[in-house]
Amino acid sequence: MHPTRVHDLDFAQLDIGREQRQGLPEVVYGPGKTTDQIRAIVGELLRHNEGPVLVTRVDAQTAAEVLAHVPGGAYDALAGLLVWRPAATDGFTLTVVSAGTSDLPVAAEAAAVATAVGLAVSTVQDVGVAGLHRVLRVQERLRESDAVVVVAGMEGALASVVGGLVGCPVIAVPVSTGYGASFAGVTALLAMHASCAAGVTVVNIDSGFGAAMAAHRLAWAGRRRA
Amino acid sequence: MHPTRVHDLDFAQLDIGREQRQGLPEVVYGPGKTTDQIRAIVGELLRHNEGPVLVTRVDAQTAAEVLAHVPGGAYDALAGLLVWRPAATDGFTLTVVSAGTSDLPVAAEAAAVATAVGLAVSTVQDVGVAGLHRVLRVQERLRESDAVVVVAGMEGALASVVGGLVGCPVIAVPVSTGYGASFAGVTALLAMHASCAAGVTVVNIDSGFGAAMAAHRLAWAGRRRA
Amino acid sequence: MHPTRVHDLDFAQLDIGREQRQGLPEVVYGPGKTTDQIRAIVGELLRHNEGPVLVTRVDAQTAAEVLAHVPGGAYDALAGLLVWRPAATDGFTLTVVSAGTSDLPVAAEAAAVATAVGLAVSTVQDVGVAGLHRVLRVQERLRESDAVVVVAGMEGALASVVGGLVGCPVIAVPVSTGYGASFAGVTALLAMHASCAAGVTVVNIDSGFGAAMAAHRLAWAGRRRA
Amino acid sequence: MHPTRVHDLDFAQLDIGREQRQGLPEVVYGPGKTTDQIRAIVGELLRHNEGPVLVTRVDAQTAAEVLAHVPGGAYDALAGLLVWRPAATDGFTLTVVSAGTSDLPVAAEAAAVATAVGLAVSTVQDVGVAGLHRVLRVQERLRESDAVVVVAGMEGALASVVGGLVGCPVIAVPVSTGYGASFAGVTALLAMHASCAAGVTVVNIDSGFGAAMAAHRLAWAGRRRA
Amino acid sequence: MHPTRVHDLDFAQLDIGREQRQGLPEVVYGPGKTTDQIRAIVGELLRHNEGPVLVTRVDAQTAAEVLAHVPGGAYDALAGLLVWRPAATDGFTLTVVSAGTSDLPVAAEAAAVATAVGLAVSTVQDVGVAGLHRVLRVQERLRESDAVVVVAGMEGALASVVGGLVGCPVIAVPVSTGYGASFAGVTALLAMHASCAAGVTVVNIDSGFGAAMAAHRLAWAGRRRA
Amino acid sequence: MHPTRVHDLDFAQLDIGREQRQGLPEVVYGPGKTTDQIRAIVGELLRHNEGPVLVTRVDAQTAAEVLAHVPGGAYDALAGLLVWRPAATDGFTLTVVSAGTSDLPVAAEAAAVATAVGLAVSTVQDVGVAGLHRVLRVQERLRESDAVVVVAGMEGALASVVGGLVGCPVIAVPVSTGYGASFAGVTALLAMHASCAAGVTVVNIDSGFGAAMAAHRLAWAGRRRA
Amino acid sequence: MHPTRVHDLDFAQLDIGREQRQGLPEVVYGPGKTTDQIRAIVGELLRHNEGPVLVTRVDAQTAAEVLAHVPGGAYDALAGLLVWRPAATDGFTLTVVSAGTSDLPVAAEAAAVATAVGLAVSTVQDVGVAGLHRVLRVQERLRESDAVVVVAGMEGALASVVGGLVGCPVIAVPVSTGYGASFAGVTALLAMHASCAAGVTVVNIDSGFGAAMAAHRLAWAGRRRA
Amino acid sequence: MHPTRVHDLDFAQLDIGREQRQGLPEVVYGPGKTTDQIRAIVGELLRHNEGPVLVTRVDAQTAAEVLAHVPGGAYDALAGLLVWRPAATDGFTLTVVSAGTSDLPVAAEAAAVATAVGLAVSTVQDVGVAGLHRVLRVQERLRESDAVVVVAGMEGALASVVGGLVGCPVIAVPVSTGYGASFAGVTALLAMHASCAAGVTVVNIDSGFGAAMAAHRLAWAGRRRA
Repeated sequence: MHPTRVHDLDFAQLDIGREQRQGLPEVVYGPGKTTDQIRAIVGELLRHNEGPVLVTRVDAQTAAEVLAHVPGGAYDALAGLLVWRPAATDGFTLTVVSAGTSDLPVAAEAAAVATAVGLAVSTVQDVGVAGLHRVLRVQERLRESDAVVVVAGMEGALASVVGGLVGCPVIAVPVSTGYGASFAGVTALLAMHASCAAGVTVVNIDSGFGAAMAAHRLAWAGRRRA
Repeated sequence: MHPTRVHDLDFAQLDIGREQRQGLPEVVYGPGKTTDQIRAIVGELLRHNEGPVLVTRVDAQTAAEVLAHVPGGAYDALAGLLVWRPAATDGFTLTVVSAGTSDLPVAAEAAAVATAVGLAVSTVQDVGVAGLHRVLRVQERLRESDAVVVVAGMEGALASVVGGLVGCPVIAVPVSTGYGASFAGVTALLAMHASCAAGVTVVNIDSGFGAAMAAHRLAWAGRRRA
Repeated sequence: MHPTRVHDLDFAQLDIGREQRQGLPEVVYGPGKTTDQIRAIVGELLRHNEGPVLVTRVDAQTAAEVLAHVPGGAYDALAGLLVWRPAATDGFTLTVVSAGTSDLPVAAEAAAVATAVGLAVSTVQDVGVAGLHRVLRVQERLRESDAVVVVAGMEGALASVVGGLVGCPVIAVPVSTGYGASFAGVTALLAMHASCAAGVTVVNIDSGFGAAMAAHRLAWAGRRRA
Repeated sequence: MHPTRVHDLDFAQLDIGREQRQGLPEVVYGPGKTTDQIRAIVGELLRHNEGPVLVTRVDAQTAAEVLAHVPGGAYDALAGLLVWRPAATDGFTLTVVSAGTSDLPVAAEAAAVATAVGLAVSTVQDVGVAGLHRVLRVQERLRESDAVVVVAGMEGALASVVGGLVGCPVIAVPVSTGYGASFAGVTALLAMHASCAAGVTVVNIDSGFGAAMAAHRLAWAGRRRA
Repeated sequence: MHPTRVHDLDFAQLDIGREQRQGLPEVVYGPGKTTDQIRAIVGELLRHNEGPVLVTRVDAQTAAEVLAHVPGGAYDALAGLLVWRPAATDGFTLTVVSAGTSDLPVAAEAAAVATAVGLAVSTVQDVGVAGLHRVLRVQERLRESDAVVVVAGMEGALASVVGGLVGCPVIAVPVSTGYGASFAGVTALLAMHASCAAGVTVVNIDSGFGAAMAAHRLAWAGRRRA
Repeated sequence: MHPTRVHDLDFAQLDIGREQRQGLPEVVYGPGKTTDQIRAIVGELLRHNEGPVLVTRVDAQTAAEVLAHVPGGAYDALAGLLVWRPAATDGFTLTVVSAGTSDLPVAAEAAAVATAVGLAVSTVQDVGVAGLHRVLRVQERLRESDAVVVVAGMEGALASVVGGLVGCPVIAVPVSTGYGASFAGVTALLAMHASCAAGVTVVNIDSGFGAAMAAHRLAWAGRRRA
Repeated sequence: MHPTRVHDLDFAQLDIGREQRQGLPEVVYGPGKTTDQIRAIVGELLRHNEGPVLVTRVDAQTAAEVLAHVPGGAYDALAGLLVWRPAATDGFTLTVVSAGTSDLPVAAEAAAVATAVGLAVSTVQDVGVAGLHRVLRVQERLRESDAVVVVAGMEGALASVVGGLVGCPVIAVPVSTGYGASFAGVTALLAMHASCAAGVTVVNIDSGFGAAMAAHRLAWAGRRRA
Repeated sequence: MHPTRVHDLDFAQLDIGREQRQGLPEVVYGPGKTTDQIRAIVGELLRHNEGPVLVTRVDAQTAAEVLAHVPGGAYDALAGLLVWRPAATDGFTLTVVSAGTSDLPVAAEAAAVATAVGLAVSTVQDVGVAGLHRVLRVQERLRESDAVVVVAGMEGALASVVGGLVGCPVIAVPVSTGYGASFAGVTALLAMHASCAAGVTVVNIDSGFGAAMAAHRLAWAGRRRA
């Protein structure tokens, strides 16, 4: 029987059993939570779980305040991520590819979360399809990955191009950069879904976190199977 | 002074002077017009103008009926185009590139209209970006064109890729193929506008005609300038 | 060097090298193609490749006509799928879960395509979240899968529920069933992206095919890695 | 004959008869009104009605200024609600369920308004469907309620799940939390309407107030009937 | 412990326990189901449950075929509803108000389903707000109801007007009538949500069924409470 | 021949002849213009025209600065309107009706602009349809007007109600108040277009100015005709 | 006191008093009504009212059947309009301008309805703004009208151009012609609202009827005033 | 063989070969980049390329800081553009037409970028279609251009009007000015696509840069051809 332990804080019911049940840490979504709430939740998770504990989308000041009370964590400013007890890498290789410099924060979140949960992450930056040779230069590297995360705003065409180059899983992250017809990532999201490359999957706009967790599921299921 | 002659039929005012004023024929949009209306309009245009006369989006039966009464025209079934007095080619080269087999009717309209107004058209088919080498195989040919029309549905990424390969004008035509998140061409239209390739321009969904006329404007202005 | 062989038919450039390059068959999308075009493409693919050949979204009459000329294939009427040379199963287990009876055709396409490319597929039907015990009854079976495809229209909530029950990859397929606020699958697509279950990925509306190919990428990369 | 007394302020016509006519207090919507306008309206309502008087969506500073001039009221900061003369509870039990910590302000508004108009309110927090056991833990409590308000952002799946667990009225409130494909509550609103759970009704995005008033209508009609 | 019995047909898992668990019949949604599937499901439900059995959105021919094999049912052609074992009325009064003649089928579905599950239904037709006196003529009758269902397409203003006249629960059903800016019911749905009348709730577009089930929940909870 | 005099400023071509040609003043849209630009334009218009000169959507500080340099004008703070040489009233009566206190600024713009161009304006405030008796109280007054402007946000139902009460022209102005499903006035705009009241016309969201100018066209044409 | 007589048919409440109250006939919207319903309604209206009786959007067969039973009416096939007892013209001149041949049915409805209620209507066809001289040729005629109805699909620019040429009321009707980015008239509707020409008002997509009734309100109020 | 040299900075891969390959400079998009990043990129581009180097959408302070470290550039404040080594003009004439004063920044970007890449640019301002004579005054000038860029917000009708006056290429830029139904440029973008003027092409909302680069492609291809 899978465990379904729940721990009540005043404002939240922590899902203490998720780590054991699904192999997924209960990652805390930072926005809208007070520093005190984050501290309390992180404290509980560190106490009741054994794996990594993460807080996403935290600004530098909040991060400093939380770390002052819950030591042992590390803050990645570009990714906006707080991590305690990062997992050891076990060999699943993930490449995070991004199309432009404005996609870097989302790519950084994907890379930092994936690293924290134990994937071996490398990054390739600024390889938009308007300069195709930049993508082609790295195609062998992409082909050798166990999975690829493609981070792209504007028209999101990089997902189709990468999906046509590699046979491994491709997880596309639309990004809310660009202006006008970019519609805050909606155009990229739709274009990625309408992609002519078979078997590309898509996560929510700007969700580097979601892409990393999707990759984590791949690695976790692969490990379990081996 | 530019001529602005207008000729009244019972149901339409023909713009007889457009050919002389803008170098553009008054192309007749077929849908919603009866065979009799098309015959009357074409007859008037042949009488009062000297250049090509076109009717777009005509089905085979209507075409046969019109041609029976207004001889001298030709019908292109794939393009759905009727043409009388096609213009002689004067050397402006246009390449029409399409991404998939379902884009062929729109590509055919673009090619047929462009040919009818005097451009030297060649076509490249089925070069979607999920198989990038198919695009790369023809890149030199694209680079040698005076202009390129890119016809693509789904995510429309081909426009970005071609826009990054060539320096000449690129006119993108979103196509209403695909399903789900393709939204009848809207996704491709938005993606083409959000394209990371600088200076790509876009025409209306499925408007092979619009792309051909945009190319005609290029050729016309180039001729005038030379 | 990865092969990029291209074979020209009159109306299409077949990507003969994809099978070897990416481990993906060149699946033919049926709608908008004539029986003759399908026959020609399938013939070429059977000749130049060695793996499975698939045609999706084919109606019964077209299927019969194609099979009359290209023997050795099989037609799955519910899935609308034609298959030649299906791959042998190699042990990767995929469960396809659907929420209601109207989701069955999409679930059938996912299951049939996944089977054709060599996955060991089982299905669970009619487990919408309004009757939660139906989902909970099958949770152990879902947990033992290497991956789960969730097929759901209306509000698409089944993806969140399954995503919270299992640790393996979850691929969500929004379905264009329902009426009113279902908006032909858009609501389910958006809801699946906004899902509170971490690491769920989404493919295009009604794309059982896309989900199967995404699962194939998982299996392919897992095999390569082992 | 039902009374329709109207009282003119300079900037508003107060509906003094609504309380008697419909059993509903004239609740004041705070945003866009000056402190002076709120004071004047509240004063009039207290003078001409006998039941509770509420002002919604008031910030702490405005609340303090109004209370300084119109004593006897109380301010609930999390709910942003000002209340004078709250109604006595008469036994109709309402449970307000929320999916995540960011849904708390809307849940608080629902609970505070419902309490002010005389319902017996209890709350259940942080029971998102990605951790289903948290919902299932409280299902008996939900089943014993006279009505349930479900407050959920993101994909809003909690409404379907609760709607499938209980037989009493379920009022769903979409919340504008989340990012990307959440579209400020639109996705949740649509998903709640497309819900597979029969007879769930929906109020406006973020309208804890609307849900409370809908519950009040239930209680009022039930009392009248008894 | 609440029962969660499930009965497997080949293509569906019937929720046999819902009647006992929630007081709700498992209503069958007709579209997309074959006559044989409907017959099988209805047969099972009649065998394993004791209350009413309903099939919605059935055309006349399908209804006749089903009734030929599963006797004892009745068909309401305007509502498109098949009913076996309708519940006895127990005194909860529901008024179904519709705005125009084109709203009648949806109003009929609401009335027929509500009657089948035991409510005492009366109807008021063609009382659009452009002829306000028609609404005002029936206001006392509306006020005496235990609940009111408002069925309206176009701009849906009738919901606001009725919501301002009565104190009992008001359930609004947007209808996909009208043209242009009516957008198949979306305008009415949004307008009903944005309604200035407090506590009006909304169900899915054209869902007379949903409104009836929402009213059934009111009646069921009221009965349980009494 | 109608005059089409144009006067060039460095940044704008003033349409000096519009007053004589159309009877419409060239009203200046304030936002995005510097104080210096407004001063220059107003100066030119006062010099070359003879009728009223208006600047809309001006904040108090800009208004003060402009008036310091271009004396003789008056500023209406609620309407955000600057006026020089207001027209004398000539008897055309316009009633501006608004639904809630948050609609007041738009109603004020409509009233102030209409007054400035010579209409006899009266206002009726806070008569939302959820309190129908407030509308009915003023129906005779509305019926005696030469035209009625209806200003309403949220669901915009007031336009339908007023359109059903009076026979004179009704000009509806959707307002961007409300939250959630109000969508910044889009819901009201659509609802007003879908209105069941025949012959109601609609202007842009928040465009009190547009409604006033539409009323001015009525009065101007009526005067010309008389 | 204004009369509000209501006459009950089995399926509709006729607003017999509207003619006297508002000067507006109760026009019957044809779609969705059976021939018998139309006959019954028309019969009642002819019996109880004295002015014109109209049925809109009627096809030729229905019209013939209705006229066979309710003699004295006339059918306008292009407009789809049935009229009994058309009003005598009283001198208010309306010009209906349309942009293309595909706008003709909507323009015809506007003209036929306006004629039936007593306006002196003239029409100008096929004056799209891409051939501006066609508009300019008729500008004096437009300027002499008491009001102008502009019927235009595609981008709807004709409304802005006409709005800039005349001082009288301009009522714009967006038309659902065109393809792709025309979005069934939505683009024209939005463009007409965003028009830079002050005081242009807009009615629903394809609503020639609505425009005619708006013009009727102008004429009615003008007559009353005179 | 075309060059595809790539130069790696820490955060970006510069496409050093684009200038030679496509005749297009690698224009830097300023927003989201730090001053240091801009300096580094510009330095690299100046070192490795020979043509103009541009940075778009730079505010005055950033521009000053960059220029302090990378001398030789010039800043155009209205256009927000930094330019080093502007190209010499070679005779291709471009006219940039804008509709209103609020379109000026976008028109300025188009003009400044086009000038920097070597086109002979002239501008025409404030010629909205509501004052048609202002457009007609400049029609000969527009007709003599090699290409015309039309910059317009609101309803974007100027593109149709200009497209009907000239035979040369017309590149339309929708602008995010206006309010309400302007929808931040979306209405203008759609209207420009739905334009009745044949062969008008459209670039992204507010993309003066995109229009200039499209014109540059025209000029570049024309030069190559000559």
